[in-house]
Formats: sequence, C-alpha cells, structure tokens
Amino acid sequence: MMRIDKNSSVPLYAQLKDLLSERIEDGSYGPGSQIPTELALCEELDLSRPTVRKAISELVTEGLLIIRKGKGTFVREAPDHLILANFTPFRFCFLAGQSLEDKHFIDYEPTDQLPGEYEAAFAANTGDGSGHFFEVIWTEGEGRSNYAYCRSWIPVGMFPNLAEHIRRRSRMIDITANRYPLLPHRADWRVHVRPAGHDEARALDISRGTPVLVVESACHSRSGNVSEFSVAVLRADRCVLQFEPTSLRRD
Amino acid sequence: MMRIDKNSSVPLYAQLKDLLSERIEDGSYGPGSQIPTELALCEELDLSRPTVRKAISELVTEGLLIIRKGKGTFVREAPDHLILANFTPFRFCFLAGQSLEDKHFIDYEPTDQLPGEYEAAFAANTGDGSGHFFEVIWTEGEGRSNYAYCRSWIPVGMFPNLAEHIRRRSRMIDITANRYPLLPHRADWRVHVRPAGHDEARALDISRGTPVLVVESACHSRSGNVSEFSVAVLRADRCVLQFEPTSLRRD
Repeated sequence: MMRIDKNSSVPLYAQLKDLLSERIEDGSYGPGSQIPTELALCEELDLSRPTVRKAISELVTEGLLIIRKGKGTFVREAPDHLILANFTPFRFCFLAGQSLEDKHFIDYEPTDQLPGEYEAAFAANTGDGSGHFFEVIWTEGEGRSNYAYCRSWIPVGMFPNLAEHIRRRSRMIDITANRYPLLPHRADWRVHVRPAGHDEARALDISRGTPVLVVESACHSRSGNVSEFSVAVLRADRCVLQFEPTSLRRD
Repeated sequence: MMRIDKNSSVPLYAQLKDLLSERIEDGSYGPGSQIPTELALCEELDLSRPTVRKAISELVTEGLLIIRKGKGTFVREAPDHLILANFTPFRFCFLAGQSLEDKHFIDYEPTDQLPGEYEAAFAANTGDGSGHFFEVIWTEGEGRSNYAYCRSWIPVGMFPNLAEHIRRRSRMIDITANRYPLLPHRADWRVHVRPAGHDEARALDISRGTPVLVVESACHSRSGNVSEFSVAVLRADRCVLQFEPTSLRRD
C-alpha cells in the first residue's frame, strides 16, 4: 500500500493524488462510492487541508472524482456498466429467447463437428439430438457496441428448418411451434474467465487476449436430451451478472 | 487470424506451430479438446504430412499438446483449473459455512464504516442489523496457493461474540447456536470481473490489476434483514463457477 512520504521531493498533494488514484483503482473506493471528507483525509494521513483540497480538486478536473453539492465527493461510476438483471443460464440461449430482433446474426450453418470441449454436452443425446448441428453465431449489443458474442449448437434433427427461419427472420413462436417438448427446460451451466479469441475479440471490439466472461449452458429439454448448447462470451469490463434471489437449501 | 505464408523465410512447420499455438491460446482448440487429425490439418492448410507431423511433435515436446494412443492429439488441460462445483451464492459466506478450518483468517475486527458501494446492502436493516459490523477477512486455498480472498460484513448486534469465536476457532455450531433465525436464507447476488486491488493481489499471489472474478452476496435471514454481506474475490485464471442445474421458469 502506498504511503505519504514527507521527506520525498514529490509534492505532498501529488503523492496524495497517487494514493487516492490507487484506492480508486484497487476498489478501496468503489465506483459511485463516497470518499472520506477532506477533514477525514487530513487526519488519516496527517496532511494539511489545502494539500488535500488541491489533490481532490485535480482529481475532479481529471474526471476520477465528482463533487455532489451538499453531499460530498464521489468516485465516478464506470461509464457503461451493463447490469444483466435477473440473469439466468437461459439469458443467451437461442431457443429460450423471445425474438430474433435483438440478435445480430453472423452465421447459422449446419456442422457435424463441435468444438472438442463441447462434445460432451451432447454425448448422452440419442436420436434427433445427435449428429448434425446448426451452429448459430450472433452478437448482442446496444448502439454500436456489442457486449455479447454468442454461439449455440442446436441439433438439426430437432429443428430442421432453423436456418431457414433465421434467414427469414421468423417469429420465435413460429420456430418453437409444436416443439415445446424440445425447448430448454433445465440447464447445466458454468461461468469462467478466459482470454478472448480472435473472432470474439473482433466482434466485441476488444484486443485479442483481453479477459472475457464466459457463460456456458447445456440446455436440456423435458425429454432429457440437450436441445441447445450455448456459449456466451461477454465483455468482462462491462457486464455484471446480477442473479435472481437464491434460497439456501440446508441438506 | 494467422495464415501460412509459403513465400515466407520462416519454415512451414514453424509457422504451423505458431498457428496451432494461437488456436490453443485463443480457445479455438479448448483445453482438453481433440485437435484435428494430421490429415485434416494437411488438407485445411495445404501442407505436407511431414510438416504437420513435425509441428505437432514439437508442440507435444513443449507440453501444449498430448497424444493419447489410439485416440488422437489433445490440448493439454489447464493444469490447475479449480471447478467450484454446485456453486451457490453461499459458497463464500461465513455464516453458511460448515467450519472455520478451511479459512485462513486475516482480520475480524469491528468497524462502523462499510465500503461505500456496499452500504446499500444493509440500508434496509433495522435494529440489530445496523450500525456496527465485524469485517471478517480470510483466504481459502489449496496447498500454498490461495484461490479466494473473502471479506464479509456481519452485524455485531446479531453475532456479538463473533470475533471471540473466531479467535478461539470455535465450531460453527457454537457460533450459530440459538441464532438460526439470523442465518443466511436467501441471497441477492452478482458476479463480475474487475482488476485486483492491492491487498487482493497480494493475498492471491497475482499482480495488482490482474482481472479477478468477484462474487458479491447479500445474505438475508428469515427475518428479512441482511445478516451478512460477502465479497469473494477469486483468481479468474483458475476458478470456474459450476452451478447446480437450473430450471427455466416460463412467465
């Protein structure tokens, strides 16, 4: 942890600026939170009021801090945090969606080869749920910036006209008509962080290797077969997964 | 995306090594997955069999790939991925724990100041659930390496002897005795990624600013008050949150 060094040739207000910046950066002073008062900082760090005032004033000028009149000094909110509220493993599942309109499709071709790590998801499938898959790729975003790069694999045998439906921008109700037993009912899912791959980085407008938040969901239909395996790659600097209230089961 | 350049002065097998390494790094070939056969790579990239064989052989020597006899060539699993199975928002809650033995305590002092961004969690609390809090800080890890840096705030009024219990390494059953109505029952929670702060980085043996996976849980007791607010900072390069099967509610 940084300390103020009164014997340093660096001016005290500049040292304090660094120290406050560090606390903002490391989350000690979180986005949107109120920082201690000038007086509290004077006492904590044994500094004079003008020194503290000058440091804060410059951080306000630089945009890290915001003064709210009569309330105090606050850390600026991250400008574009996206709270994915009521998040469930179905949020980025194609078949659980309400419409195609929020999706920017990149591809939806049939394939008979799944990425090796995802093969296991369909391993127990039988009949229509095995073999060929539509690999549906799309992005979701707001304005010009995408926050999600989504890939889904859906058995062709279960939804044979899927590509045609996407091409025609059908309504979800037409895609799912008479196929309710095949729709996602239960998901096995996981969340982790890894570096963005090439296509993911390009779609999300980040550098390759930037950490992304990955949500993988194997969606089982009521028949028990997996009818969709979905991988959502999210911008980790923007997306917050906010879950529905969860109850503790005491076993 | 890298391409093989037949006019380059770099040997073809070396270019192929780079290309395969890139596909491993960017997740095109995920950890544990099977890579295409030699023949498939020959055809895809218009390379000779000896060239492909030499590139793969060197990547095996370097440990990125593994040959399983009669099965194929696979990407090495990440060596120390930690699957947090059956993950729930209570996983890193102090009061929902089974014992103190898996925790390495760093601090457990009373405080009357919460980090600003977490104040809201207790805002609706009344009576014993407001005012002073124990700030309990601990790490969890395996062997010498920590994967979680946990902070919890617990109202002193609800668990007045908490620090004493921790100091004496009481059993959880003694801490929770006669306090069942105060134990976590329901959690509001979220997951996001942010750069590690100073203390977090030191505890997790990573560089400051390295992305960490953060799980924040406001644990409500049956009375409705929040009896614990917990923030678990997890090594994003190691931890996978694997959730229990989740059912879709159709509204």
